[in-house]
Formats: sequence, structure tokens, C-alpha cells
Amino acid sequence: MSASAAGPAAPVPVLALGDVLLVTLQGELHDGMAEQLQQDITQRIADSGVTGVVIDISGVDMVDSFLGRVLAEIASSAGLLAARTVLAGMRPAVAITLVELGLTLPGLLTALDTERALELLGHGAGRGRT
Amino acid sequence: MSASAAGPAAPVPVLALGDVLLVTLQGELHDGMAEQLQQDITQRIADSGVTGVVIDISGVDMVDSFLGRVLAEIASSAGLLAARTVLAGMRPAVAITLVELGLTLPGLLTALDTERALELLGHGAGRGRT
Repeated sequence: MSASAAGPAAPVPVLALGDVLLVTLQGELHDGMAEQLQQDITQRIADSGVTGVVIDISGVDMVDSFLGRVLAEIASSAGLLAARTVLAGMRPAVAITLVELGLTLPGLLTALDTERALELLGHGAGRGRT
Repeated sequence: MSASAAGPAAPVPVLALGDVLLVTLQGELHDGMAEQLQQDITQRIADSGVTGVVIDISGVDMVDSFLGRVLAEIASSAGLLAARTVLAGMRPAVAITLVELGLTLPGLLTALDTERALELLGHGAGRGRT
């Protein structure tokens, strides 16, 4: 029901913005989607030589141990390909829940929103034009 | 099943990148989500004065008349608030289907990908840094 023609679950789109890949997570990430996403990101890094990955989770209202592990694994594999991963847009309630669960996402950089994440990666979003 | 706490369907995240809002559509957009998205985008334009909206549909494998109408309405309402909307990342198969259905999305600017859409809106994604 969730996709029309692309199999059981549509892959999460990975956008390229200059030297950075941008992924916007929405709703739930199922097993197959998580694996596909990790493959897509690493393949795109290898193909295009981007140096950063921003994963926006402002549309995610719960990060459990599964998603925490997926994010950490994406960051680790991207790191092995010399790209830094920044987690952006975490909701305050999600941050509290993560701490309560003891999941502090070691090894992941975080930023308040995607714009700040891009700045953190040395990739301002055209701010200079104002 | 699709969201943990945010009601029947999680809202689509709207990211701000400088002067542009970025929305990445994934999977299916249901009625309530479409209405919510239109409200979110117009509210964000009014609040922050952004001048462009990029809607990336690279993760969408079918655009039907409903989604076509939603996109046109978002573009029209954004236009009334002085923001231009660019549709980015349409898959070739989607373009063919749209033409076959006679849906040519009048009034919508298109770009091959989000990076080109940002350039079209005069908002390069940090390319100058290379």
C-alpha cells in the first residue's frame, strides 16, 4: 500500500546538494529500507566523492534502538569513505527519549536543523547572497 | 502503523535552506497529508519570507491527477505569497505517464534535480566553494 510500483517499500530519496548528500527521513524506516538507504548513501559517496551526509529527522517522532543503530552504521560506513554524517532536526522529545533509553548516538554529529548541519560541514546554503 | 505518535499520518517535513524551503516527497501522499503540507508551506513562507520552494519527487514513482492537483495548488498558493515553486527530480517514467494522462502541470517550474532547482531559484548550494 505504501508505494505504487517500487516493491514492498519505496526507497528513501538521497538528494545531492553540492558536496553533501541530504536525506529526509519520514515516518517509519523498515528493515529493508534501512539497508537500502545505507547502500544508496555509501554508493553515492563512492560515485560522487561527496564529503558530507546530512540526515534530517525532523519528521521522525520516535528514534528507537533499531533506528539509532541504523544511523550509527550509516555514519560509520560514510566515515570509512571519508564523509562526515550530521544528524539534523531532532525533536526535543526525541532527544529526551533517547537519553532515557541510554541511546546517546556516539560518533554522530548533530545540528539543530539542516541549514546548521550544512554550515557545520562547511557548506553554507547560499547565505552569502543576502 | 505509519507513525508512532503524530496521528494517522506523519506530516511531511519542510526544511529551510537559506531563502528556500525544501520538501522531499516519499511514497504516497494522502489527502490529509497534502492539505497539511500546503498549510505548512504557506505558513512557513509567511513566517520567514522565503522566496522559493523546491519539491523533490525523485522518491515518487507515480504522479496521478490528485498529486498533480496538490502540487499545482501548493505552487499557486506559494505564488500568491511571492514564492516560486520548482518541482525537482521527476523520474522519466513519471514524465511519460503525466503526458499520457494529459497532466502537464501548468504553472509549475521543473528542474532535473534539487541542486539545479536551487540554482534556478538563484540559490546555488555552495558550489562556489570548490
